[in-house]
Amino acid sequence: MTYCLGIINNFGIVMAADSRTNAGVDYISAYKKLFDLSLPGERVIIICVSGNLSVSQGVLTRLNRDIKNQEEINLHTLTNMYDVAHYIGDKSREIQELDRSWLEKDNIDFSCNFLLGGQIKGEEPQLYLIYPQGNFIQATTETPFLQIGETKYGKPILDRTITYETPIDDVAKCALLSIDSTMKSNISVGPPINLVMYKADSFDIHNTLQLRLGDPYLAKIRKLWEDSVRHAFEAMPNIEWEPEVAESVEDILID
Amino acid sequence: MTYCLGIINNFGIVMAADSRTNAGVDYISAYKKLFDLSLPGERVIIICVSGNLSVSQGVLTRLNRDIKNQEEINLHTLTNMYDVAHYIGDKSREIQELDRSWLEKDNIDFSCNFLLGGQIKGEEPQLYLIYPQGNFIQATTETPFLQIGETKYGKPILDRTITYETPIDDVAKCALLSIDSTMKSNISVGPPINLVMYKADSFDIHNTLQLRLGDPYLAKIRKLWEDSVRHAFEAMPNIEWEPEVAESVEDILID
Repeated sequence: MTYCLGIINNFGIVMAADSRTNAGVDYISAYKKLFDLSLPGERVIIICVSGNLSVSQGVLTRLNRDIKNQEEINLHTLTNMYDVAHYIGDKSREIQELDRSWLEKDNIDFSCNFLLGGQIKGEEPQLYLIYPQGNFIQATTETPFLQIGETKYGKPILDRTITYETPIDDVAKCALLSIDSTMKSNISVGPPINLVMYKADSFDIHNTLQLRLGDPYLAKIRKLWEDSVRHAFEAMPNIEWEPEVAESVEDILID
Repeated sequence: MTYCLGIINNFGIVMAADSRTNAGVDYISAYKKLFDLSLPGERVIIICVSGNLSVSQGVLTRLNRDIKNQEEINLHTLTNMYDVAHYIGDKSREIQELDRSWLEKDNIDFSCNFLLGGQIKGEEPQLYLIYPQGNFIQATTETPFLQIGETKYGKPILDRTITYETPIDDVAKCALLSIDSTMKSNISVGPPINLVMYKADSFDIHNTLQLRLGDPYLAKIRKLWEDSVRHAFEAMPNIEWEPEVAESVEDILID
C-alpha cells in the first residue's frame, strides 16, 4: 500500500509520500514515490505515485525520457499545468495499452494514481489527482488537499486543521502528522517519508526532507504530537450522561 | 455504512455506535445499532451491529424471542460470555441459512458483524467481535478495542490514547471523539450516536447517552476538540528541513 498527499493553499503546495511497497505481506520493500521534475527558476513539477509499481515506473521513465530526448511535448515545454496533467494521464494510458491485457489475465491490479503539484510561470500553483483511467481532478479552495493510496487514517487531521489560509509551515507539519498517523495505524504504509514544501511564486523547491525509519526527528515529532493529543484529550470536559436509565429489554422485544 | 466500537480495560467497557443506514446514496435512514440486553444486577450484555440490516434485525429478534419465550438457552441463561458469543454467531448462521442463497442470486452483501460487550457474574468483563461467518475473536490487553464498519478514520485517536489503564471516563470521551472524527470524514456515518459506559463489577448500566443531529453537547465537544487539536498542532515545532537542495532531474533520468 501507499499513502501520498498533496495540499495546496494561498501560500504554496506541500506534497508528501511514504515509501513502502508490498506484494503480499511477505514481500515488502521501499520505493520512492515522490519525484521532483522541476525546471528550477521556470517551473516546479512534483509527482507522487500509488498503485502498480511497474506501471508507475514506466510512466516516470517515459516522462523523463521525453525531457532528455527534448521531445516537442515534454514536462518542460508544456505551457500550463492543465496540459501537464493531461500529458501524464496519456502516458499512463500508453503503459496500460501495452500491459493491461496481460495483467488482466492473471487478475493483477494495474491501476495507478498520480498526484501532480506545481506551478508554471504565468500561472497560479495547481494541484491535480490523475486517476488510473487518465482523467483527472483539481484541488479547489473548498477542499485544498488530495490523497492517493491508503487515505482514510490520515484524513481526520486534514479535515480538522487545513484551510486555504493555513500558514505553509503549519501545512507541512500537518502533512507529516497525517502520514505518521497512517503509519501508526496501518503497517502497509512505512518510511522513509519524503516531504516537499513549495512556496508560491518562488519557482524553486527550497524545502525537502526525507525521514528514515528510526529518525530522531520523526520520533520526536510523534512523541510530541501524542503528548499534545493526550493533553488536549484530558482537558476535554467529561461526558454529560443522560439522567434516565438504559432502555429495558422489554422495549425492544418484538412480538 | 456504520461505525461501532467497543473498548475494554481494567475499569470497564465503553461501547458506541452511529445510526446511519444507507442503501446507495439516495436512500439514507437512521436505525439503532446498539442494543442493551442486560439482566440488571446479574449480567450486562451490550450488542452493536453492522452490515445487512435484514440479517442483523433477524438476529436481534431471535435473541429477544428466546429470552421472552424462556428458551432453555438464551442470553439470560448462558453462564459465560464465551458461550454468549457462540450463541450469537449461531443465530447469525441461522439467518444466513434462510436467506443467503436468495441474496447471493442478486449479489447482495448479506454479511453482518457484531460487537458483544458485557459481564456475567463470576467472570471478568469481556469484549468480542463476531464475524459474518459466526466465528469470533476477543479483545485482549494488547489491543483493548474492537471496531466494525467504517473503522479507519476513527482508529488513529484510539491507537494514540487508549490503554488498559486509561480511566473509564476518558475512554468514553475517546469513543465519542473516534465516532465524531469518522462522522466528519465520512458522510455514510451519522447521528444519532449511542454511547454506553459500563463500570466493571457493577452489573448494571448507569451511563448512557444518545446524541442527535445538532445536539449542543456534540457541537460543543467537536468545537473544543478541534480547538485543542489546532492548539496542539500550532505548538508543534516547525519542521527541520534538510540543508541540501532537491534532487535534480538528471539524478533520476533513466538512460
